[in-house]
Amino acid sequence: MKSSNIYERFSQTFRQHPSLSRFLVVFAVSSKNPLLFTHFSGGGLVAYSEGNILSSSPKIDELPEAGNKKKRVVVLGTGWAGTSFLKNLKNSSYDVQVVSPRNYFAFTPLLPSVTVGTVEARSVVEPIRNIVKKKNVNVNFLEAECYKIDAKNKKVYCRSTQDEKEEFIVDYDYLVVAMGARVNTFNTPGVEENCLYLKEVEDALKIRRSVIDCFEKASLPNVSEDERKRMLQFVVVGGGPTGVEFAAELHDFVSEDLVRLYPAVKDFVKISLLEATDHILNMFDKRITAFAEEKFHRDGIDLRTGSMVVKVTDKEISTKEIKTGKISTIPYGMAVWSTGIATRPVVMDFMKQIGQANRRVLATDEWLRVEGTNSIYALGDCATINQRKVMEDISSIFKKADKDNSGTLTVKEFQEALDDICDRYPQVQLYLKNKKMSNLVDLLKESKGDVAKESIALNVEEFKSALSQVDSQMKNLPATAQVAAQQGSYLADCFNRMDECEKHPEGPLRFRESGRHRYKHLGQFAPLGGEQTAAQLPGDWVSIGHSTQWLWYSVYASKQVSWRTRSLVVSDWMRRFIFGRDSSQI
Amino acid sequence: MKSSNIYERFSQTFRQHPSLSRFLVVFAVSSKNPLLFTHFSGGGLVAYSEGNILSSSPKIDELPEAGNKKKRVVVLGTGWAGTSFLKNLKNSSYDVQVVSPRNYFAFTPLLPSVTVGTVEARSVVEPIRNIVKKKNVNVNFLEAECYKIDAKNKKVYCRSTQDEKEEFIVDYDYLVVAMGARVNTFNTPGVEENCLYLKEVEDALKIRRSVIDCFEKASLPNVSEDERKRMLQFVVVGGGPTGVEFAAELHDFVSEDLVRLYPAVKDFVKISLLEATDHILNMFDKRITAFAEEKFHRDGIDLRTGSMVVKVTDKEISTKEIKTGKISTIPYGMAVWSTGIATRPVVMDFMKQIGQANRRVLATDEWLRVEGTNSIYALGDCATINQRKVMEDISSIFKKADKDNSGTLTVKEFQEALDDICDRYPQVQLYLKNKKMSNLVDLLKESKGDVAKESIALNVEEFKSALSQVDSQMKNLPATAQVAAQQGSYLADCFNRMDECEKHPEGPLRFRESGRHRYKHLGQFAPLGGEQTAAQLPGDWVSIGHSTQWLWYSVYASKQVSWRTRSLVVSDWMRRFIFGRDSSQI
Repeated sequence: MKSSNIYERFSQTFRQHPSLSRFLVVFAVSSKNPLLFTHFSGGGLVAYSEGNILSSSPKIDELPEAGNKKKRVVVLGTGWAGTSFLKNLKNSSYDVQVVSPRNYFAFTPLLPSVTVGTVEARSVVEPIRNIVKKKNVNVNFLEAECYKIDAKNKKVYCRSTQDEKEEFIVDYDYLVVAMGARVNTFNTPGVEENCLYLKEVEDALKIRRSVIDCFEKASLPNVSEDERKRMLQFVVVGGGPTGVEFAAELHDFVSEDLVRLYPAVKDFVKISLLEATDHILNMFDKRITAFAEEKFHRDGIDLRTGSMVVKVTDKEISTKEIKTGKISTIPYGMAVWSTGIATRPVVMDFMKQIGQANRRVLATDEWLRVEGTNSIYALGDCATINQRKVMEDISSIFKKADKDNSGTLTVKEFQEALDDICDRYPQVQLYLKNKKMSNLVDLLKESKGDVAKESIALNVEEFKSALSQVDSQMKNLPATAQVAAQQGSYLADCFNRMDECEKHPEGPLRFRESGRHRYKHLGQFAPLGGEQTAAQLPGDWVSIGHSTQWLWYSVYASKQVSWRTRSLVVSDWMRRFIFGRDSSQI
Repeated sequence: MKSSNIYERFSQTFRQHPSLSRFLVVFAVSSKNPLLFTHFSGGGLVAYSEGNILSSSPKIDELPEAGNKKKRVVVLGTGWAGTSFLKNLKNSSYDVQVVSPRNYFAFTPLLPSVTVGTVEARSVVEPIRNIVKKKNVNVNFLEAECYKIDAKNKKVYCRSTQDEKEEFIVDYDYLVVAMGARVNTFNTPGVEENCLYLKEVEDALKIRRSVIDCFEKASLPNVSEDERKRMLQFVVVGGGPTGVEFAAELHDFVSEDLVRLYPAVKDFVKISLLEATDHILNMFDKRITAFAEEKFHRDGIDLRTGSMVVKVTDKEISTKEIKTGKISTIPYGMAVWSTGIATRPVVMDFMKQIGQANRRVLATDEWLRVEGTNSIYALGDCATINQRKVMEDISSIFKKADKDNSGTLTVKEFQEALDDICDRYPQVQLYLKNKKMSNLVDLLKESKGDVAKESIALNVEEFKSALSQVDSQMKNLPATAQVAAQQGSYLADCFNRMDECEKHPEGPLRFRESGRHRYKHLGQFAPLGGEQTAAQLPGDWVSIGHSTQWLWYSVYASKQVSWRTRSLVVSDWMRRFIFGRDSSQI
């Protein structure tokens, strides 16, 4: 396979020196929000990974000791967590095998845009082989599905995604489980058979075809008015960020593009959003929820809160009103199910092996090590961190903070240990926030009564009682791209300085300065359609409207995994703006 | 479904005034070849339709006579022929229904590029509703398949492509059959089950996934070397322009992009091109064939001419050497079948109804009217023009040319009728070309012996004998996009001035000045990979190399059906040049 000519060589130059290509991208990302752009680095995966808080640069162990075989690391999954781990792994003393049914990384936060063609599927994916090929670490990709983890013998069993008979076994020294989760149907009858999901790129493409299908079918003659209404009734189940964003994108697609092409049936279109709780976007600030509900109302999106889906057939969805128990049915043309996630069967099976059978989600310690194992790590949507309670560690915290071993903590001593406590036990910060206190000193003050700040001094019992309530605020990290990417980057740093860590082992009862996974929330967007977006930023900032939409454009463009996807996404946005979205049935 | 804001309104402005958008397309198409760009008109379908030769502007009948119901025209198909007809139909006295299983027009000449992602599928399609929506003619699109034409009762039977139970009947006054053709497997066993085709957009997408599948599967452990070789053996059957272009695109994809991502298996890749005749690109000039064969040889593409496929199983292709009869087998990973076209079953059934049962292809007269019917037209790949022989019409040609009714033709009289004869009977031109004569006068001269040009005068028998051999050069028009588009535009013009035509009816025996379909060949490209293209232009021009590749880029960009697809195709080419092709498995 040889071939060469001047054009090719010129073009090769671009590809071998990808930094050149960025000069050709004419889109300038403005740094409006310094926090969100802190580590904006072109060409690399920045992908929400700014949360990495290791101040010391990782020690890169380039040469493995003589006679020492390279440690075999197997990574399961190429989503946010797995890809972020691979991107940040720099220690060449590992031999890495990646097993995933998808040979690409997908920028999932843009999937709702892909469902209606605001952005093309191709623009949000990047081959994993492309992502890892420039590294000094030896990474080998295998397109296969892991169907069994054998923790005892340190093996994973895999099968080809194309040919079920093609099976193989991979041995590991360290296993990184980043397989994500499956859609949670809550065992609602008929969901699997009749609803579409919005988790994978294929799901988004299916939805796109299905929307056009409904419009084409409703445009045929001999279709009764009732049938036409049914076909153009789109139902979104789940009022979380994904469901809300999809409903908004669908509304824009219909009102900006399809009404012009299907004038005869446009009046039959209806979009309904079903949510079991009282409000959509529960995890956001109330101002955002209120704004979103009001906007959907204005847009004519039928919002049904407090309404739980109990059954789905091929043409009807049955819902139960939570308050009254009243059952009603909605005839529908297309339904998208987006209510949350659940553990994959292969992970369930693995949990049984390691004594986590009675848990619903795979648990890890704060170092992302799976509880009950010593060489398996889990991150992203497939696991949760079993956060330590302050009360469990209260004595060691006290001892650590009490530097002069006086048996009492002064405010000065306490303030020095403060950041570490807050980082390690996020519940402390949440507790303070809810009580509207600016820092822990206020809490101590409260417990000691009205004394001067300088004279506060607590013994261990007083310290315990002051913090006794904070564990009530323990919360799991949300299953978002941001969390997964930060975890991946954290774990890669741990692997990069593994030798160092082995010399200075870290255990759950130690209270050291660095090396633990501390999640830094950078804010979350909720696009609402019509070029309006809401954002909840750190420090209780809420931003809503057109300017936030532009912030969203900037952040999402900057977070792209490669310059290729970045330029494609930006040109997709421009294309949509100029020509609208395409409604061809492909 | 209401929604409005300043961004949307701005963006709407663009879409409602599509001419604005062309200012944003920064790609300037240079008019290198005036012939190819004669009627380059932005925003409209130019699509090879320059062959339209009506000099008088069509009479647009805006108001149908009072009490006179609009004529119902049904168009079957949205390929080159159907779309070109719809684009050029301007007479609002028709009520048009379009029935097609595809709700879009596809720029099929770029399909080989789509198979490897040089151009994205989305960039070569345009919704048919978009194409027809700005016309003053009432056009209604129905996404369905016509499964039966009832010529007697003027009805077509259709069924929804999504739901087989959804059937309906459409009545017509005029029927335009433009359903294209199916792939011809020549009843070779196993082709349908095991080979991929390259006719539809879906076919191209399937091939793209299949190529990556082969590379991923060959990269798995536990695969033997023989199996790896088999999986990466790509076979293209058919050495016509499509097969050759696909083989070239595949070679570029492998050598420019995949070898970098799959270094472990790159040496196993082999591309074979099988052709039953002695040479590839038979319909082109011999210089092009020789250049293409030489280039493929240099590129390491395994060219097997004189080799006919006799059987295909899931892992092996059996071929027979035409000369020796020797059978051999090729283990393969992916095979693409591109050997020609055959008539669709629904058209076969229709042919039986109208007395064409013993023909292989639906026959029309020169006016594209299906023989044996009076209100059905057929064009594009689904029909051939049953060209009239000069000998059948020789008396009327003579009479028409003999303006003074003298019973003899002088050279002057003859020269006046010359263009019409050549236009109407293309075989005359071909005959002259083969005998290296510049025009018909030379032919007459030859038959009269060596006399002075002015004194030539032929009676009808002498005229007959002079032209007696020309019908031997009769040839069907090739099944190309160019022919289909010219036919569509010709037929639309006929429909536009239908009233006029009814007042002055045209029959096959009349020899009038205008209104007949005369095909004007504008040349044909054969892209050969590595930024090299061959082109056969009118007047026996042959152009090969890099500059021809740029001509190809210009022509294909200018021929796009809309400014949207034009800008997308151009940006795809730039994207490929900068970032290479994407190998994600979606």
